[in-house]
Amino acid sequence: MMNKQLIFKKRPVGLPDADTWFLETNEIPELQEGEVLIQNHYISLDPAMRGWMNDNKSYIPPIAIDDVMRAGSVGKVIKSNNHPTFKVGDCVTGWGGVQQFEITKGERCFKVDEKVAPMQLYLSTFGMPGMTAYFGILEVGKLKEGDIVLVSGAAGAVGSVVGQIAKIKGCRVVGIAGGKDKCDYLVNELGFDAAIDYKSENIYTALKKNCPDGIDVYFDNVGGEILNAALSKLRMHARIVICGAISQYNTTAKVEGPSNYMSLLVKRASMEGMVVMDYAKGYADAAKQMGQWMYEGKLKSTEDIYEGIENFPETFYRLFNGDKKGKLILKVLEE
Amino acid sequence: MMNKQLIFKKRPVGLPDADTWFLETNEIPELQEGEVLIQNHYISLDPAMRGWMNDNKSYIPPIAIDDVMRAGSVGKVIKSNNHPTFKVGDCVTGWGGVQQFEITKGERCFKVDEKVAPMQLYLSTFGMPGMTAYFGILEVGKLKEGDIVLVSGAAGAVGSVVGQIAKIKGCRVVGIAGGKDKCDYLVNELGFDAAIDYKSENIYTALKKNCPDGIDVYFDNVGGEILNAALSKLRMHARIVICGAISQYNTTAKVEGPSNYMSLLVKRASMEGMVVMDYAKGYADAAKQMGQWMYEGKLKSTEDIYEGIENFPETFYRLFNGDKKGKLILKVLEE
Repeated sequence: MMNKQLIFKKRPVGLPDADTWFLETNEIPELQEGEVLIQNHYISLDPAMRGWMNDNKSYIPPIAIDDVMRAGSVGKVIKSNNHPTFKVGDCVTGWGGVQQFEITKGERCFKVDEKVAPMQLYLSTFGMPGMTAYFGILEVGKLKEGDIVLVSGAAGAVGSVVGQIAKIKGCRVVGIAGGKDKCDYLVNELGFDAAIDYKSENIYTALKKNCPDGIDVYFDNVGGEILNAALSKLRMHARIVICGAISQYNTTAKVEGPSNYMSLLVKRASMEGMVVMDYAKGYADAAKQMGQWMYEGKLKSTEDIYEGIENFPETFYRLFNGDKKGKLILKVLEE
Repeated sequence: MMNKQLIFKKRPVGLPDADTWFLETNEIPELQEGEVLIQNHYISLDPAMRGWMNDNKSYIPPIAIDDVMRAGSVGKVIKSNNHPTFKVGDCVTGWGGVQQFEITKGERCFKVDEKVAPMQLYLSTFGMPGMTAYFGILEVGKLKEGDIVLVSGAAGAVGSVVGQIAKIKGCRVVGIAGGKDKCDYLVNELGFDAAIDYKSENIYTALKKNCPDGIDVYFDNVGGEILNAALSKLRMHARIVICGAISQYNTTAKVEGPSNYMSLLVKRASMEGMVVMDYAKGYADAAKQMGQWMYEGKLKSTEDIYEGIENFPETFYRLFNGDKKGKLILKVLEE
């Protein structure tokens, strides 16, 4: 049986190009004792992937050259050689990588229940992005009822959940996204109080208009000038959650630091970084809570799904050119 | 009776020049009912003064043009027109400004005890700088025994107390200061574990050498490249206390934001600003604790005192050219 695998060939400088990956087709080896064969159905595409390609110390090691491109995944066990817990037919999510099949002993794989939610939701609201949003806004952001919340990347997998949770908790929520379509989606479909289109509006003017009383919590997915503008509008004791900096991930110049950071002093405010893995112990409770909200119609999960492992590079670019809405997913299962 | 007063005449761009202030000699008016006349003995010179001269929203309003230059002060009541609490001979600290005499109803003035400490210490360790150090490192920095602590502006009024408190609390303390003389003072007189001379050493190389295991708490008085370098050496769950940014106060270019701020994410670290006034309720207890440490010989207070109100501008420059050690004070009393 053959496995299409996307191999990481070259560390990119700036935006990855065609030489970054190479699609190989390889024979699947025999299972060793205790291993399972998982057929990946869906692959998660995340801005964080760009960071994993750099040869830098970070919260996880960089992807090694000639390894399968790292990615979160969800799929089904199709073969087991006496694995102690996973059985054929089990639906599992883990770090399957950009490939159609994965052999594993089950490290960092979790069984998920398709009866609770369709498989792909375990890559979005019930997966890393949802958990990031949940713990980021509630624990790091120390969200309180009545807070004025600003979120960037608001139409994305994390931002859209952040904003909806803040609405559920009784906050005023303003989202920043690129383009009228996404802004309409935030306000009309997700119930945000207002949306700022950073592509057509001056961010400082727009913040003045939409957050006239300032900001209590800013959830930052983008960095750059938007972070800087948010700093200029902080209220006393404001909290900034640093979740990502997508505007800076492909930069070949020096990263732009937030020159307005002294607002932290003036406003006795804090800026704190987070990595979702730290909250693993709470995932199950968070999923239960978010499932309840979805059941009650208070929380919507949006997936933007493309098909074909060979389309990984062009799908990946959608992360950075903004051409997607909600959670970006690639279906690698060939039916 | 005549009062020499330094009047704030022009908002500076960059480093203040000779036109920024004008020294006037004015007749002291009669006291109104409930007022006291205070003869200022000592004036406090603080980096924060530079910020008060800008026409920006900040944690206190800017100094108005034609007002007496704002400054902390300590002096003695020499006349009272039925003031309810202050009597002639009382020693008081407050916001007397850069002038020899002040008429006040006693707003934001506090009686201090010369028997506990010489008058000028109420502008240093028992005053704002000491309180800033105390609450900054203990409350905002959440100092724990065994922490590795880095402090910039370490030979200054705040930094020198920060470092000594961290030593008292059982931490490894590395100070950053300008010049061999100050670095020797930190290590040999104040008991720091190591000192970095930012004027002669590369800060990244020096941090690698002196903080090989990283930094738990960075107390920042300077901003700029030193803040950026400290960000690159954070340990997990590190705390950065933003107390000042003296390297940026006179800049006419855009403030340099910390481009390494994404370390906050990688290290799940936080950066938080502070203003000492927020801790006013705790001043008395803090002073008692610091007095105890001084009595036990664990905490040294250093004052660098110059004389003559007419020498205010050149004394002020010492804040920014580094030509002072410990707390910079100007004696305005003419004996």
